[in-house]
Amino acid sequence: MFGRYLERLRQACPVIHTITNYVTANDTANMLLAAGARPVMAEDPEEVAEITARCDGLTLNLGTLRTGVIPAMLAAGQQAALLHHPIVLDPVGAGSSRLRTETARQLVSTLSPTVIRGNMSEILAIAGKESHIRGVDAADSDTVTGNTLPERADTLLNLSKQLSVILSVTGPIDLVTDGKRCLMIRNGRPEMGRVTGTGCQLSALTAAFLAANPEDPLEAAAAAVCLMGVAGETGWKRMQPGDGNIAYRGYIIDAVYNMTGQMLEKGENVELFTRESAAVCSDGPELAQGRIPG
Amino acid sequence: MFGRYLERLRQACPVIHTITNYVTANDTANMLLAAGARPVMAEDPEEVAEITARCDGLTLNLGTLRTGVIPAMLAAGQQAALLHHPIVLDPVGAGSSRLRTETARQLVSTLSPTVIRGNMSEILAIAGKESHIRGVDAADSDTVTGNTLPERADTLLNLSKQLSVILSVTGPIDLVTDGKRCLMIRNGRPEMGRVTGTGCQLSALTAAFLAANPEDPLEAAAAAVCLMGVAGETGWKRMQPGDGNIAYRGYIIDAVYNMTGQMLEKGENVELFTRESAAVCSDGPELAQGRIPG
Amino acid sequence: MFGRYLERLRQACPVIHTITNYVTANDTANMLLAAGARPVMAEDPEEVAEITARCDGLTLNLGTLRTGVIPAMLAAGQQAALLHHPIVLDPVGAGSSRLRTETARQLVSTLSPTVIRGNMSEILAIAGKESHIRGVDAADSDTVTGNTLPERADTLLNLSKQLSVILSVTGPIDLVTDGKRCLMIRNGRPEMGRVTGTGCQLSALTAAFLAANPEDPLEAAAAAVCLMGVAGETGWKRMQPGDGNIAYRGYIIDAVYNMTGQMLEKGENVELFTRESAAVCSDGPELAQGRIPG
Repeated sequence: MFGRYLERLRQACPVIHTITNYVTANDTANMLLAAGARPVMAEDPEEVAEITARCDGLTLNLGTLRTGVIPAMLAAGQQAALLHHPIVLDPVGAGSSRLRTETARQLVSTLSPTVIRGNMSEILAIAGKESHIRGVDAADSDTVTGNTLPERADTLLNLSKQLSVILSVTGPIDLVTDGKRCLMIRNGRPEMGRVTGTGCQLSALTAAFLAANPEDPLEAAAAAVCLMGVAGETGWKRMQPGDGNIAYRGYIIDAVYNMTGQMLEKGENVELFTRESAAVCSDGPELAQGRIPG
Repeated sequence: MFGRYLERLRQACPVIHTITNYVTANDTANMLLAAGARPVMAEDPEEVAEITARCDGLTLNLGTLRTGVIPAMLAAGQQAALLHHPIVLDPVGAGSSRLRTETARQLVSTLSPTVIRGNMSEILAIAGKESHIRGVDAADSDTVTGNTLPERADTLLNLSKQLSVILSVTGPIDLVTDGKRCLMIRNGRPEMGRVTGTGCQLSALTAAFLAANPEDPLEAAAAAVCLMGVAGETGWKRMQPGDGNIAYRGYIIDAVYNMTGQMLEKGENVELFTRESAAVCSDGPELAQGRIPG
Repeated sequence: MFGRYLERLRQACPVIHTITNYVTANDTANMLLAAGARPVMAEDPEEVAEITARCDGLTLNLGTLRTGVIPAMLAAGQQAALLHHPIVLDPVGAGSSRLRTETARQLVSTLSPTVIRGNMSEILAIAGKESHIRGVDAADSDTVTGNTLPERADTLLNLSKQLSVILSVTGPIDLVTDGKRCLMIRNGRPEMGRVTGTGCQLSALTAAFLAANPEDPLEAAAAAVCLMGVAGETGWKRMQPGDGNIAYRGYIIDAVYNMTGQMLEKGENVELFTRESAAVCSDGPELAQGRIPG
């Protein structure tokens, strides 16, 4: 299903402007390069609009948020909106401080991003619902698993409609919805949570997929999620005795570097989620849980 | 001795707020994840107190210090102190500029950190003694070796008492003291100095060990030093022809990822240092030097 | 030709102050350590002059430029100039925003750096000539290949004389000129462009080579280019199935860690470029193109 999305990305070679945190900026830049995109990182309000205008897509990431960068995020976002470039918001840590929650909300309401890519706790916090973030990770009680799937999918479908934004929510089961369709992805490995920045990398990849595949943003966002998940599975197979999270970090990005459309297609585990299938699924949570990777 | 300290860290899974430099932030985050802790990095004065309140320990690191971040360090530190969370100060480059030396002193006097983790030149600079930092590394003339051990240990014991802080000083021989006891650790490899950020990683690990082992902060701080040193030795054994400092960086962090309490216990080389043993030791420096790793 | 330049660097162990971007700072620090230099990174205007005074060379890098850091670049640069330390400017992204282009020009005119190390688009932008930067990479139409070599070399020779600065311009063919001589280097691999920060690393390496080899700055700058290129070739030979840009990044830095003067000498592909040889070369572009690495 998503092979051609990756192939188009490699052909288009989109330039992605990423305003991001300094913890994972290097991995994010290398991940974009691995996928065939080109990274640019700039954050000074004086230049971001100009930089954005020369790019094909924009990622705004709230990790290590500094208030001085918020005007840059707004200026870049307004320029991207003007040019109809895709905007991806990664609300890292929304719910863990008022600054992050409110900045995320401000960016959503002001810029109408194409996609919000985050974990369940962050999305719930933006929506003003109860959430339980721990560090910058979703609390277990918030994540989407077989048991909570129907309820979470319902929440996200409604929220997506309400905010007019595609929600790309990663966790044990990933859900990507535009308020009409909800795609359910079961790729990836739980050990990806032991590598810092896999979420940030996915958000930047999402912008690259959107830029190269403008005709179907929902599927483009889901393709990015699948690519990241399949890379996590491919990378895991390379783990040797003695390897840990640093080796794994490299194997994941290198798996993207070597991924073909055909390989992605073969590995992707995606299905359409509907309220009807959710009802069925909630009857058989043990089955659903059995399919959680890892 | 320290196996159960690591096991408790892995059980407690403490969230560590690290205000740090952008050069080594990624490695520090991945090192915390490797050890079983969770990293959060935030530095805006508007949110740091809130972030700290949700964490279990705090690291303040002066690498790439920006004056605008000092208020954040103070606010986070005051919140951590209020909640009796451990605070670790890494005075990167103290002695190399007035800004760093004075900021380190201000943080020590205002926040009463649990531990200062640095090299000998940095500690001497904070104490107002002559030091000879070269870049951000201790000058050879400052480091603790077999010859200088008795004198350095004495200095640190006194300084620790005077400042009411645990000093964790790394070099060819590591010394960790609370002013009463002084633990002497001979783990690690000199080649760790060719990898940027091993000190920063150790400081964050120290906060994680303190958070998970509040009953004995001196031993918790020493356990972190041993873990880092044993990981440096374990990682070195994986070095292949062609490997250099980047491969070694990964092997060290991956060694922590795979380290069990039992492995740490087997590898740790720690003994109690007393003024009496120092006198003995100073009589036989060639023996002491023979034990310097590497 | 350049073996002894590397050997002198390893003996001198120069401390290099690098004011740089947060995307590639870690790799840059590790690259300096791999080569035998020591990195210091500081960017606060309050301390940079003091830090610079304790170092042996300075790199100014415009990646993720923040206006607040420009005064620090000026202060550090003035201190370095006062002490006759080499200054290397890496005008990352010049041409992609007014801020970067004008800052690059301001630094050139105020500080008279020893070397500007960048890609062809960046150099053309500083000189006020037409350029076509794409992201932070030189546009294909700007780069130096067999076809464009004579014209580009001529441009750079004139520009170098006019600006009184050594230009070190990397691309498919690298050119390093002081306005009198122009050295032409054909080392490296095109795949190095898929690793973020190889240019930033080279700029810092250039400062280290200049600091350790003050008697011939042109050759010192060219030696850095050769080292990076030969490391890129050596690293590429280690690539295994499954490896991608992250593995390659590590192999390149590790190749520098293990490089001896003899190895560099054996691998370097450098020749003197003259207007006469340019004329000859332009007659046989297919030959020149055949020698483009990769």
